[in-house]
Amino acid sequence: MAPPAIILVRPQLAENIGKAARAMLNFGLDDLRLVAPRDGWPNPEAGPAAAGADSVLDKARAFASLEEAIADCHFVYAATRRPRGMMKAVATLAHAAGEARRLAAARRRAAILFGPERAGLENDEVARAGAILTIPANSAFASLNLAQAVVLFAYEWHQAADATPSFKLDKAHSGPAAQGEVVGLIAHLEEALAARNYFFPESRAGAMRRTLRNLVSRAGFTAQEVRTLRGVVKRLDRFPRRDARKR
Amino acid sequence: MAPPAIILVRPQLAENIGKAARAMLNFGLDDLRLVAPRDGWPNPEAGPAAAGADSVLDKARAFASLEEAIADCHFVYAATRRPRGMMKAVATLAHAAGEARRLAAARRRAAILFGPERAGLENDEVARAGAILTIPANSAFASLNLAQAVVLFAYEWHQAADATPSFKLDKAHSGPAAQGEVVGLIAHLEEALAARNYFFPESRAGAMRRTLRNLVSRAGFTAQEVRTLRGVVKRLDRFPRRDARKR
Repeated sequence: MAPPAIILVRPQLAENIGKAARAMLNFGLDDLRLVAPRDGWPNPEAGPAAAGADSVLDKARAFASLEEAIADCHFVYAATRRPRGMMKAVATLAHAAGEARRLAAARRRAAILFGPERAGLENDEVARAGAILTIPANSAFASLNLAQAVVLFAYEWHQAADATPSFKLDKAHSGPAAQGEVVGLIAHLEEALAARNYFFPESRAGAMRRTLRNLVSRAGFTAQEVRTLRGVVKRLDRFPRRDARKR
Repeated sequence: MAPPAIILVRPQLAENIGKAARAMLNFGLDDLRLVAPRDGWPNPEAGPAAAGADSVLDKARAFASLEEAIADCHFVYAATRRPRGMMKAVATLAHAAGEARRLAAARRRAAILFGPERAGLENDEVARAGAILTIPANSAFASLNLAQAVVLFAYEWHQAADATPSFKLDKAHSGPAAQGEVVGLIAHLEEALAARNYFFPESRAGAMRRTLRNLVSRAGFTAQEVRTLRGVVKRLDRFPRRDARKR
């Protein structure tokens, strides 16, 4: 595996370097490189923003030139949202992250270049890249914070190999109750209501029962929740209000 | 359309509120709500971090309680990575963002709850949600910065309806040259090399020509780039080095 290098070109703020390091480690990346950081390197001001991602900062390397920083990388993406008038393809974040995964699996390293906060990458820097990476965004307000751009790439890198089911039950969630229990709850509720002449007039009784059956059947209560609700119905059914005589 | 509300519950740092506002507007969201922000609201310290997303901050609303903040929302996700032992389903970011899109299309509003920086949402707050949202991340270092969690949701919200092709040509990119032009370049190069006895020995000449044809054919040069390369070959072919006589 050769996970991609995140290369911050001429970064200005140490805080953004620290936040980028944290964002990288959040999603399993740890090869951070800096090209000519404005305030030098190492920079103790990056530490607090890294919030514990010290391992990434400790092994981060600073280079005098972009050419040195990319020397051992096999494909380079330049993150920029401005059209450059260059004969170069433009990839989305998800595409670039997927390609970085495929390269890594083949022991080839992708590099992702992010430009300085104020002005982004220069054309000469973009010309070193194999493709442009543009994060699809609101075209009326598309300028992303540097560390936020890094976290989005890192997230997509993680997503490209993540198998988390899109929707699953919490470990404590026992799953829905068997329908016999659901039917029992509905019968209990209907009996308590019928005893109070709730299903009136007779012509609407069928629709009223269906409304109750629908709402209980659809809710997906667990067995424990069905037991809780039966206790609720029982309590409402059998006990008068404590202050009933006062009213 | 009822775009989702981003609800920061008891946020501590104004900077994170500003960064969340910027992240939201980057991806087309603008309904920011705050529940009991530590330092009150409005808070002028949020402005600089918003980096121009003032429209989001200006219409952000503060509420005294979570219940008030979610009153007009139709489905609530609680962003948390800690298992809560609750009978609740856990959705990924992409799933929640897709559901928020479907709700919005039906004029129903999703709410996404993000807890305070230090400790996250309390169990009583999670219990108000219809589902838990957990961002798949590096389990050994999964604690995300608040504004970074917000930008990831906002990004997935945008992605859920974005049609940007994953890989496209820059506007300035004229696309690959017609193969007749590519073949002409190869022939030009081979002729200049053959005149210098490059294809030697004869037994390897076929393989050497195939190597050249492969590398030029695969590169995907544009018509303009083919013309540039023909100029390069011509120059190398016809002109001696300026300092040839000195060597």
